[in-house]
Amino acid sequence: MIQSRTLRVDYGKMTRVVYVVGTELNVDLNRGAPPSSKFCSVKASPNVHWSIGSVSPKPFHLCPISLTENSVLSITMSSASEEENDSKLSIWYYNENKVKLGDAILHLTAVEISLDVDADRDGVVEKNNPNKGSWKWGPGGHGAIVLVNCDCERTYWKKPDTEQNFISKLSDLKDMSLMVLRTKGPAKLPDGYKLTMHISQGDAEGIRVYRFEKEVGKPNYTVDNYPLFLDSRYLSKQVTYLGGAREVNFYVEGLRFLDKDFNGLITINLSLLEPISKSVPETPIFSDKVLFRVAPWIMTPNTLLPEEVFVCSTSDNSKFLEEIKNFVAKSGYKLKICQEYVNRGDRWIQDEMEFGYIDSPHQQFPVVLDSPRDRKLMDFPFYELLGPDFGYVTRVAERQDVSSLDSFGNLEVSPPVTVNGKNYPLGRILIGVAFPTATGGRNMTKVVQDFLWAQKVQDPIALFSDWLRVGHIDEFMTFVPAPDRKGFRLLLASPDAAYKLFKGLQKDGHGQAKLFEGLENQETITVDEILNDEDLQAENNYAQSCIDWNRDLLKRELGLDDEDIIDVPVLFKTDPRQNRAEAYYPDLVNMIVLGKNLGIPKPFGPKVNGRCVLEAEMCSLMEGLGLSCTFIDDFASYHKKLGEVHCGSNVRREVFDFKWWNLEM
Amino acid sequence: MIQSRTLRVDYGKMTRVVYVVGTELNVDLNRGAPPSSKFCSVKASPNVHWSIGSVSPKPFHLCPISLTENSVLSITMSSASEEENDSKLSIWYYNENKVKLGDAILHLTAVEISLDVDADRDGVVEKNNPNKGSWKWGPGGHGAIVLVNCDCERTYWKKPDTEQNFISKLSDLKDMSLMVLRTKGPAKLPDGYKLTMHISQGDAEGIRVYRFEKEVGKPNYTVDNYPLFLDSRYLSKQVTYLGGAREVNFYVEGLRFLDKDFNGLITINLSLLEPISKSVPETPIFSDKVLFRVAPWIMTPNTLLPEEVFVCSTSDNSKFLEEIKNFVAKSGYKLKICQEYVNRGDRWIQDEMEFGYIDSPHQQFPVVLDSPRDRKLMDFPFYELLGPDFGYVTRVAERQDVSSLDSFGNLEVSPPVTVNGKNYPLGRILIGVAFPTATGGRNMTKVVQDFLWAQKVQDPIALFSDWLRVGHIDEFMTFVPAPDRKGFRLLLASPDAAYKLFKGLQKDGHGQAKLFEGLENQETITVDEILNDEDLQAENNYAQSCIDWNRDLLKRELGLDDEDIIDVPVLFKTDPRQNRAEAYYPDLVNMIVLGKNLGIPKPFGPKVNGRCVLEAEMCSLMEGLGLSCTFIDDFASYHKKLGEVHCGSNVRREVFDFKWWNLEM
Repeated sequence: MIQSRTLRVDYGKMTRVVYVVGTELNVDLNRGAPPSSKFCSVKASPNVHWSIGSVSPKPFHLCPISLTENSVLSITMSSASEEENDSKLSIWYYNENKVKLGDAILHLTAVEISLDVDADRDGVVEKNNPNKGSWKWGPGGHGAIVLVNCDCERTYWKKPDTEQNFISKLSDLKDMSLMVLRTKGPAKLPDGYKLTMHISQGDAEGIRVYRFEKEVGKPNYTVDNYPLFLDSRYLSKQVTYLGGAREVNFYVEGLRFLDKDFNGLITINLSLLEPISKSVPETPIFSDKVLFRVAPWIMTPNTLLPEEVFVCSTSDNSKFLEEIKNFVAKSGYKLKICQEYVNRGDRWIQDEMEFGYIDSPHQQFPVVLDSPRDRKLMDFPFYELLGPDFGYVTRVAERQDVSSLDSFGNLEVSPPVTVNGKNYPLGRILIGVAFPTATGGRNMTKVVQDFLWAQKVQDPIALFSDWLRVGHIDEFMTFVPAPDRKGFRLLLASPDAAYKLFKGLQKDGHGQAKLFEGLENQETITVDEILNDEDLQAENNYAQSCIDWNRDLLKRELGLDDEDIIDVPVLFKTDPRQNRAEAYYPDLVNMIVLGKNLGIPKPFGPKVNGRCVLEAEMCSLMEGLGLSCTFIDDFASYHKKLGEVHCGSNVRREVFDFKWWNLEM
Repeated sequence: MIQSRTLRVDYGKMTRVVYVVGTELNVDLNRGAPPSSKFCSVKASPNVHWSIGSVSPKPFHLCPISLTENSVLSITMSSASEEENDSKLSIWYYNENKVKLGDAILHLTAVEISLDVDADRDGVVEKNNPNKGSWKWGPGGHGAIVLVNCDCERTYWKKPDTEQNFISKLSDLKDMSLMVLRTKGPAKLPDGYKLTMHISQGDAEGIRVYRFEKEVGKPNYTVDNYPLFLDSRYLSKQVTYLGGAREVNFYVEGLRFLDKDFNGLITINLSLLEPISKSVPETPIFSDKVLFRVAPWIMTPNTLLPEEVFVCSTSDNSKFLEEIKNFVAKSGYKLKICQEYVNRGDRWIQDEMEFGYIDSPHQQFPVVLDSPRDRKLMDFPFYELLGPDFGYVTRVAERQDVSSLDSFGNLEVSPPVTVNGKNYPLGRILIGVAFPTATGGRNMTKVVQDFLWAQKVQDPIALFSDWLRVGHIDEFMTFVPAPDRKGFRLLLASPDAAYKLFKGLQKDGHGQAKLFEGLENQETITVDEILNDEDLQAENNYAQSCIDWNRDLLKRELGLDDEDIIDVPVLFKTDPRQNRAEAYYPDLVNMIVLGKNLGIPKPFGPKVNGRCVLEAEMCSLMEGLGLSCTFIDDFASYHKKLGEVHCGSNVRREVFDFKWWNLEM
């Protein structure tokens, strides 16, 4: 809507007025008229347009118009002034006999002002987008985007760039959103007028603004040309008006991620102030505003291709490491090894962090979410990953609130799904918790849950993982890519499938086939012995019922059919102290997915004709999907410590082609 | 969507199953089949419905069906069981030659369970509304409503009912939302099954649940029949299953108002738990949920009729009090006088509190918002107003954050408006702040602003009031009812209108007419003297520019035309120490509006033919709208202390006919 401004005009006076192109000045003709005025006429420079109600200018003569009770003169101008006060408008007042009683003169200075951003999200700051002050989701939507500047331009003395209120390297500018103040007008504004940029105290918690300042005579620009302009200490600051047609660049830096108390919307205002007197504050006579939305943190599912694979080197995992190295190399991806002096024996690199990314039309980079788990790998995300174009975010929880469920083996994301007609093109986040009906269950800590839910674009689902001793959803589920149907399958650990397989073996005369053959410090057990163990059967019935509960929820919340789910033979056993489950043999679903190559814990199952039937079954289930299985021996160094390949690895993946701002919310 | 549950069925076993009417059981036929099974057949009691893919039951004979890889048996039942396990379903498995290999038997117990609320907002708890778990705004919307139980059933030892976790009087139940658990089924559930109601930790900050418990043999119900059921200490509790067709009543109590960190949505869950074994938590096999939205606090504009008028009695205001009494009596409303032992000389009853109300389909009552101003009237809202069906809410601010702008003369609400096609049928809240561009300006404290913005249904507008010494928007604006146009007029104080009036007087030869005649301790001044005072003119030019700034904003944000606004002749003068404005003579817009009767500060303006021209002008402006002006002498006891009639009074009004949940948001 057009900005209208009430202008006071007194007869017998000359009034100097600054006008902003695109707005409208309204003069109440009665207010400033001499007593007994009944008519008025208006004359103006050609570039000044006016009307009184339905009456528009009559050129070349002054035709007196009746003054009614609500006679309002509307004034607009279509272009900026070349010089101060270069346009005129005069109002003549007459009595009932059309005798002139007095006049009022306006000297007008027109300026063009627009604060501009990339509201149409094409990576370019367009001019005066009519929608720049609001947000609309979707491909036809609008609203600019700002990234949390959570990477670190420096590679030493690291801290996220958000934690310093200056620009340390010019490369930091590309992590910020360009905002341009465009002005056009005379060489200077009339005395006392000034431009001010301002933000609210609340919004200042979410952003900082830097300004580009040119210094004449310097050949190159340095960080000194980009001083801090607005932050929580300086909510409002004057912007020097430069004269002529000019553009001034500002750089907007996001400071905090979406969270329970922050919806991510930030407004930056630009006002033209009119001086009144020294003793009172200047009056804003024009305000422009732009809106930014802070980009959410986005997770990447197994169906996206890997960029880098991470594992830990420990004193006891050389065999595993060798096999992983070969697997990753064979798959054609890059492996990064976290050395022991960093991990200090903590091999659970899946659990310490989750890779994600932030995205905008002008910039995107990976961001690691550091878990409040904080065991001996705790420094890895900050000290090893945070860096130029590699962001870092964490949530701090009270120590007593942190449990095993806060490890990020308990935080996954589904591939894109459609559920009852609702699209989730970025998938849905999955976490594991206790049943809400259970007392004394473990849970993922509230600060992390609040963070995940606040991102909004991958609407989370809470599964039931507290039945497991370690309590991570990656112990019973994973996703693998598929060429058909929804583009993926959900793999679920299935004790029933394992029992069925073992009963078939028994029936076919292989009841004496042994599990765990060839392993040191591990007794073997026969298929018959397993099938005869009624306690084990009861424990697995319970495990199956827990998995089935999750299966029903996943079907409902991800819109899956039974055909989208593959049951993978996995047995569990119950820890007698905690009455919680752990994998009986290496847990086949706890795998690493690198494109079409699956790195699967070697199950050491019973052999028929020299081949492990669990491996054979797994290959048979996966090969139909064009997936290749590599079995990695994690028995001693991971499985016996209650984790597997997935727990002991982490994968940074390519980002989605789909842009989060194109979501229909 | 229908709730589906995966059910494990093993051959050679009888399985007892509890089924909830309206859900679906899914049996993976392959999972529980004997090895080598190729066919199956199903037989069931007449009330048990089943299908396998597209195959439905063939009555009177068992026709073996091919087992495919994904053969899933779906089972439903249409009504509750009369007795435990009274329905049967059997699955026979066959080999490739259709020779029977084994069978599985299900004994089914069907129950009906629904947790019910008034989701259609008609004041009655309907049965199993399909939309009870979600919220939709508007006349065709859905979602139940809960009130913050912020009144106090007791009239002594007062505190809001939310602050005690028990019901002290049966009358308290009507401030809560009824929630009914309806169950139908056999006399008892199979062993170990139980019903549990549960809420999340976050939602428990917003509500409490009480339960009705009958005691046999007692003739009358007392508060002992309504013990606390769920709160933040008891997030989950078993509900006794009663057998047959039963209804159990629960009462949901809202605990906190909408605020920056609380969107007002609360979910209550009811789950049916299946026992597994003693050592593991029961599994929820069915969950129902209902959603409540906490009702917002709603303000009432001048266009709503009064219920009660409040003023203070002080040692020096007997004349004012007498005139107010007469005015209120004449207007036909009730006057309540806050006595001096309560107000301790603090006469600004407008500033200490704002009247509003909360509303639901089942109950509504007034709620006073107590300002953090906290001068000597501070105890009045709590000790005098809080009571049965009279609620209380406040926001606590740091002392140093509280300024004069936190007085509620600075908090008003417009009548209903439509702005660019958007309806605000409850009007819009108006507050006064400093220009965001000004440094060192005063502001309304953040906790109160957060509260006001969070209510959402009267989307607030921030005006500029910091130019006034006292800094309240009621010093320059008010709304009066009107029979035409939008149903109201906005009255704005207008120094221009005052100067125009005085210049007209001067021109007509009344320049020597005196203001302030007949007042004690107040020097008179002539119209000529006022018009000759150039400083005063400059001060008023500034005041007018500030009011014009607000005028432009109000036009834009309330969708007003110039014809909706009346300029009322008011002069200001500037306090030389603060450079802020105060009314020069009693401020005509600072009035009390009681229906069509306006109680206006007596201006003591210049007289022509014995009649005050300011009063005459005011009457002339108002009479066209059918409004009657009564001028009340507040000069010594209010005006000289920088307030007027409005500041010294408060009005509790009737509520809107429009229901807030019918807003289209």
